[in-house]
Amino acid sequence: MISEKMKPLVNNNSAIRAMFEEGNRLAALYGRENVYDFSLGNPNVPAPKEVKQALLDVLNEEDSCFVNGYMSNAGYPDTRKAVADSLNRRFGTAYGPQNLIMTVGAASAINIFLKTILDPGDEVVTFAPYFVEYGNYVRNYDGILRVVPANTRDFQPDIEGLRAAVTSRTKAVIINTPNNPTGIVYSEETLRALQNVIAEKEAEYGTVIITVSDEPYRELAYDGVKVPWVPDFLEHAVVVYSYSKSLSLPGQRIGWLLIPDSIPEAEEVISAATIANRVCGAVNAPSLIQRALIRCIDASTDIEAYNANRELLYGGLKELGFECAKPQGAFYLFVKAPDGDDARFVDVCKKYNVLVVPGKSFACAGYVRLAYCVSNDMIRRSLPAFRKIAEEYGL
Amino acid sequence: MISEKMKPLVNNNSAIRAMFEEGNRLAALYGRENVYDFSLGNPNVPAPKEVKQALLDVLNEEDSCFVNGYMSNAGYPDTRKAVADSLNRRFGTAYGPQNLIMTVGAASAINIFLKTILDPGDEVVTFAPYFVEYGNYVRNYDGILRVVPANTRDFQPDIEGLRAAVTSRTKAVIINTPNNPTGIVYSEETLRALQNVIAEKEAEYGTVIITVSDEPYRELAYDGVKVPWVPDFLEHAVVVYSYSKSLSLPGQRIGWLLIPDSIPEAEEVISAATIANRVCGAVNAPSLIQRALIRCIDASTDIEAYNANRELLYGGLKELGFECAKPQGAFYLFVKAPDGDDARFVDVCKKYNVLVVPGKSFACAGYVRLAYCVSNDMIRRSLPAFRKIAEEYGL
Repeated sequence: MISEKMKPLVNNNSAIRAMFEEGNRLAALYGRENVYDFSLGNPNVPAPKEVKQALLDVLNEEDSCFVNGYMSNAGYPDTRKAVADSLNRRFGTAYGPQNLIMTVGAASAINIFLKTILDPGDEVVTFAPYFVEYGNYVRNYDGILRVVPANTRDFQPDIEGLRAAVTSRTKAVIINTPNNPTGIVYSEETLRALQNVIAEKEAEYGTVIITVSDEPYRELAYDGVKVPWVPDFLEHAVVVYSYSKSLSLPGQRIGWLLIPDSIPEAEEVISAATIANRVCGAVNAPSLIQRALIRCIDASTDIEAYNANRELLYGGLKELGFECAKPQGAFYLFVKAPDGDDARFVDVCKKYNVLVVPGKSFACAGYVRLAYCVSNDMIRRSLPAFRKIAEEYGL
Repeated sequence: MISEKMKPLVNNNSAIRAMFEEGNRLAALYGRENVYDFSLGNPNVPAPKEVKQALLDVLNEEDSCFVNGYMSNAGYPDTRKAVADSLNRRFGTAYGPQNLIMTVGAASAINIFLKTILDPGDEVVTFAPYFVEYGNYVRNYDGILRVVPANTRDFQPDIEGLRAAVTSRTKAVIINTPNNPTGIVYSEETLRALQNVIAEKEAEYGTVIITVSDEPYRELAYDGVKVPWVPDFLEHAVVVYSYSKSLSLPGQRIGWLLIPDSIPEAEEVISAATIANRVCGAVNAPSLIQRALIRCIDASTDIEAYNANRELLYGGLKELGFECAKPQGAFYLFVKAPDGDDARFVDVCKKYNVLVVPGKSFACAGYVRLAYCVSNDMIRRSLPAFRKIAEEYGL
């Protein structure tokens, strides 16, 4: 019954489900409070109160047929204007509503953009470690994902690796900053180097290579680190955004795709991406949260809660002898397996009721990802378990 | 920049946009109140008050992280249970939450199901007149849509035409009852005949052919007409539903895919469709409206408002001499072009500020579609324009 393309996805899925079921099994055996689940990127910080108020106000003040009805496939014009204005205020840009398509989260935005530009056999480059779904998204349109191996020195993208990976079939490069799973923010220097290599390859092959900047973690940056605005550095960049993390709304499925005028044939690309939004079945981003967004566009999540988690978990693990780059953004730690074997590290953690994701899920073996979008109390209670794990490794 | 597959979509889109712009042009010239726009299927009846109350209650009573967070890709278990229970109450069925996947509307549900089952070159059959997006959905997965020509006698599907259209590559048959654009409800006799032909062809080719029953208009039936429950008649049927019309929520993007246990390898198909929901970028149906649905699952729209529109427009057009099958459901009239030329009919209508959609957009030339999900007052005001149109045709 299942299509050939779906079969490997069904088979791979069992690993993720196995972890989920393992969590439930451990919780049943030892009690939920004695299981330390760092496996999921589901924000534990509630949405800012402005979001709830905006939703209530929209429901009470705006016309039902308007709030619940179809609008342009690209979204309500005033929602798109609110987003454009907010970007312009923050980054000194000059985007208009016509540069934005409201989408069913960032995942849908990446999909509709790839559908817009990819022909079968076209290539997309990304950098390990990377969000594993990128591969599925690219294969949805019969593209090929080329992965540049991880630069484990500082987890900035490997520029020479990019130079080696780009071919005449490369249509796009997906970047993700702040990064899942490392928490690393791409530096201005990195972005300049990316632009140089891409421009060099565009000239060599006579092609256009679009940088797709996936930025759901943009607002989650610590220690005053500035997350550079990617289109200021990459000439041919589109930006994909989601309010899943910045406003703690992953279930609501709301995000956008920005296609700046600097993209060749921008108007036609925007029109095609809008149609892709329709024919992929999304049709439009959910209407109610689109309306609410206008009223809470400048709300922000409680970044200090994540920062306290980061300090506690990073500090605790370092003290125990684990190796880890200190994340500047997002809500993940990417911790080195003490003996380099991430599968074994996952198993040892599990022995002490600690659930983490192996690095090979991000094409970067030898590490595990810990999501610290959990309660500070859970982190505190987990530290004795990590002590035992460290002891088991003789740290 | 645009992929080969998207190019024809971009070109076709200009026709739809042209109509939209024509509407705006006429409104600017003659005033919005003097333009009679019957072109859009956007409900004019507000969502039932229970929906707003349910949304307010969820926002005020349920935990923010739960309401806005990720859940299983198939949807909240209690939302799926509420839908299953509602179906079981109404149709005497025995579905469980595990048979349901909550989706970003019916359009997304059809897409994820086709992604689940179609290999390139597989065929899907549907009956003219049909919702033109079916072709785009099938082509998304490199399938081929085979269209059975319209039975213009009574617009029930042409059973002999189906027999001729099915091949060894046929994976699915898409039906749509109550129908867009005709308003016809498939009779029990029709469904039995469909089952006979499909079973015959399954036996002949040793294949399984899934009927995909697209039913956004199920709740919009008039004169006490009963809309048969398709899986009672079709052995291998999945049902696709949306609350776009039944609760007037098209912008909210909420619907479901039902995969009954009667589908071969049902459990694996459900698992694959759930993964398809994730990798297509939807990830999950919007969370807030999923929560609200539990509290207003049995709410219903003001069907009498649509019925009054149906009677007024149908009666008015018949009296003027136009030919049209009286619709039993949905909110469309499919009116015969007096001289059989639908393109000319559209143009003549436009002359009198009446906007309608040509039948060729539904693979059924010679007719036009009028959507009567508009104000009763607009219909009343439009009748003198239709009188002039009738006079122009010498009716």
